[in-house]
Formats: sequence, C-alpha cells, structure tokens
Amino acid sequence: MCELLGMSANTPTDLCFSFTGLTRRGGETGPHKDGWGISFYDGKGVRSFHDPEPSASSAIARFVSSHPIKSKTAICHIRQANVGSVNLANTHPFVRELWGRYWVFAHNGQVPNFVRRVGMYEPVGDTDSEDIFCDLMNQVRQNLPRDAMPTQLASTLVSLAQEYASQGVFNCLLTNGDWLFSFCTTRMASITRRAPFGPASLQDTEMTVDFAAETTPADVVTLIATSPLTLDEEWDRYQPGEWRLWQLGELLAQGQVDVPRYPTTPAPETC
Amino acid sequence: MCELLGMSANTPTDLCFSFTGLTRRGGETGPHKDGWGISFYDGKGVRSFHDPEPSASSAIARFVSSHPIKSKTAICHIRQANVGSVNLANTHPFVRELWGRYWVFAHNGQVPNFVRRVGMYEPVGDTDSEDIFCDLMNQVRQNLPRDAMPTQLASTLVSLAQEYASQGVFNCLLTNGDWLFSFCTTRMASITRRAPFGPASLQDTEMTVDFAAETTPADVVTLIATSPLTLDEEWDRYQPGEWRLWQLGELLAQGQVDVPRYPTTPAPETC
Repeated sequence: MCELLGMSANTPTDLCFSFTGLTRRGGETGPHKDGWGISFYDGKGVRSFHDPEPSASSAIARFVSSHPIKSKTAICHIRQANVGSVNLANTHPFVRELWGRYWVFAHNGQVPNFVRRVGMYEPVGDTDSEDIFCDLMNQVRQNLPRDAMPTQLASTLVSLAQEYASQGVFNCLLTNGDWLFSFCTTRMASITRRAPFGPASLQDTEMTVDFAAETTPADVVTLIATSPLTLDEEWDRYQPGEWRLWQLGELLAQGQVDVPRYPTTPAPETC
Repeated sequence: MCELLGMSANTPTDLCFSFTGLTRRGGETGPHKDGWGISFYDGKGVRSFHDPEPSASSAIARFVSSHPIKSKTAICHIRQANVGSVNLANTHPFVRELWGRYWVFAHNGQVPNFVRRVGMYEPVGDTDSEDIFCDLMNQVRQNLPRDAMPTQLASTLVSLAQEYASQGVFNCLLTNGDWLFSFCTTRMASITRRAPFGPASLQDTEMTVDFAAETTPADVVTLIATSPLTLDEEWDRYQPGEWRLWQLGELLAQGQVDVPRYPTTPAPETC
C-alpha cells in the first residue's frame, strides 16, 4: 500500500522527524519504493518536492529530511504503484489551483474503473488517484460557492469521499493550506501534540526527539498518518468511513459515514 | 530586473552549469535576491523547486546545482521584486494544468495596472506576472482547440504577448513540456549547442565545462537567457518584439511584432 502523512499546526513546524520515519518505509522498512512527494505551505504558496525514486535512497528526500522547512500545513505520500506506471507525473501529492488557492491532494487506496465526470480539471498522469482528485476538484468548483465555510465544504467533501469509497479503497488527505481534510476507508491515525510536550521515538529508524526542547507551550501540532510513526505515543486510529477536518492543529469537525469494509491487506491499498 | 533561463533539448540534459551561473546573480554578481525557482519536465511530469531566499545563498539552490536533474525542457527565474512582496506564492515559475498538461511560465518585466479578464485560472500571489499568466491561460483555453498545433498556438501566444507588451515590459518563457515559447520586449538571447561541442566558461563564476565530454554527436541543446551566461560563446540576441518557438532544441518558428521600445535600465524590468 501507499502511505500518507499530513500535518496541521498553529505555528510553522518542520516535519523532519516524521518525514525521516516515513521515508524509511519507501524501500527500507516498507515496500513503498515507487516514488514519493511532499508539499509544504508557506502562506498561500506551496513548495513541493516530487521524486519517482525510492524515498529511502532518494537524494532529494535526504535533503528534505536534513533541511528543516517550517510549515503550518503539509502533505506527504510514499507510493507503491499499482495503477499507473512509476514516473514523475504519477507521483503524489497532486496540486491544482482553485479560487486563487493551491489545493493539494494525496490518496492511499485503489478505485478500479473509476470514471471521472467532465470538468475543467484533467489528470496529467494515468493514476486513478489523480483522476479522482480532478473529479473532486471539478465537483467542488461546480457545487460550492468560493466563500464556502470549511464545515460547508466538509459536507460536500464527505459526500464525494463516500461516493469514491463505494467504488474502492479511498484514504485521502486534501488541503488548501487553510484547513486539512482527512478521510479513512481502511487505515489512518492521528496524534495531536501540545504542552506538556515529551520525547518520542520513531518506529522505523533509531531516532528520538524531545519536543519540549523544540516547541513553545502554545504550540499545537497534529499529524495524520496511514499508520503510527512513533513507538511511545498514543495515536488515535480512524474508523472505516471516519473523516476529520483539521485547522491550525485543532479538530474543526469530524464524523463517520458508511463505507464498504475491506481486510487491511496490502493488495487493495496499492496506489 | 529579474532574469530568465530556459532550456529546450532533444535529449535529457542537466542544467547545473547554466543554473550555477544564473544563481550567482541572485545576490552575488547580480541584485536578483528576492527568490528564485526552477521547473524541470520529466515526461509529462514537472519537478519544481521554489525558494524566496536569494539563489546565491539558498540551500535548495546549492542542492539543485550539485545534483544533476536531466530534462528536455526547463524554465528558471531569479527575482528582483517590485510588484508583489517577497514570499513563496510570488516566486516564479508559475504552474497550471491545461488539457492534461502542466504549463509553466516565468516573466521578466513589469506591466503596471494590468487587468486580468475573467476566467477559471486565478493568481494565488499578488504579482502582475502571475496575473498575466492566468489571463494568458484563460485566453488560450477559451480561444484554442485542445489539439492546436504548436504553430497555431504560437500565433495566439504572440498576439497575447504583444497585447501585454503594449502595457509594459514583457519578456517571458512559457512551456507545456512539448514546446518552449519565448518572447522578448527588452532583453533575451539564445544559444543552440550541437556537435562539434566545445568548452564554455561562465561569466558569473569561475567554472568551465567541456560539453564534448558530456554529450553525444546527436545532442541538440538550446538555452534562452535574459543575458548571455558564458564568456566564450556567441549568443544570438533577440530584437524587441521578437519571439521564438523551440522544440527539442530546434527552432520551430520565429517572428517579430511591434512593441514599445524601452531603455534597458533595471527599473522597468523588475518583477
């Protein structure tokens, strides 16, 4: 399967620690060796790094993990290809502009035979993931006002996510830099770190960080990942069909809808 | 002024040599210290690096100049800000998707009081450059068929460029990865390297390369830059109003239209 990582924070925060853990799974502790990508917001701007190389051995990934880039909102994806060949165009996250904001999307799962409805956004690559993202963007543009509140937006996103999930496995992260929407069909977990901060150790490589030394008491940082990245923290696992909308590290809204249940075997989760 | 650099080649070629020279002008040999960006195509995919830091001291720029990324089409920009503050969202090149391809644009110049016509593409930042790019993309989408030939596309692009140039200084590079369009109001030059290849030395830093050792006899590589990057090569300077359409390193079409003449002082060329 692919793996997702998202961050929502109330202060610019670097993702080096979590990114280092996740990228080990891209060809070292995990099989997701078919490329990786990460997008960091800085204000309304987005800085993305994409590479079809395995993240565990990618020079760009080494650079990103060793040069702290601080952001309030970030989305990362490591890929194990199934639909679509291994190339740069098929590497998540995907980015499109809507209403003067960059929207960033990453997907974990597989939605076979997905048919995109006609609209202005079209995929560049040939993954079902980018096809779904373009359909989602077209539906949002056509059915919502540009000044829609995040909660109004969420109800549209949940309906669309439920529709996609009815056709396959659909775990996703979507953001416009202001909020971060997460939807789970099979596997997803989140953790919100706030004062008092403590230490944490990565599951995938020998690395420990003491967040108390790197934060202020006012910091709130939420991470969302396909599976927990640390050994010594309590991650809150999503239920199938559960969605959570994050903003500045806080939970803005959440809910759960009916979705088909799948065994969490690797097969249906490739992307 | 800002400076532009573009590459069109018939074989994947790295831009390290030229990029190293250009980035010296971002705070060292030149005043363009308000950010930089570069986009490399790999098939239909695009890999972009953006940084609001001066390119001469940017860690990301150092990484890009020391890790060869091979591409047939690339666009680079270093910025000296005038319209729009110094931030990531205002950093060129700008990217949008049209007809299932990523289109990449960078601008050198200043078009005061530009008014964008209504359309689906909207700027994320607040530069006149991104405003013009969105207007251009809206006009192309509205007035051309998706299967337009590059030469048919060129006539539309030239009309639009002439219109923008009538309102200010408009030097630009635009590509969808298949072709590269260049338009000059004030300053632009190109060079096409092909066998027999020789050595070249950068103007902005002590660096010489022997292209003969890094190429095959079949290679054709064209560079387009605001001002020549090498000391010992003959660059072909554009005339005001001149445009050139490149594909796989070769000149596909060219022409010249009337544009207002400006003194090539730094002032009107900031962006």
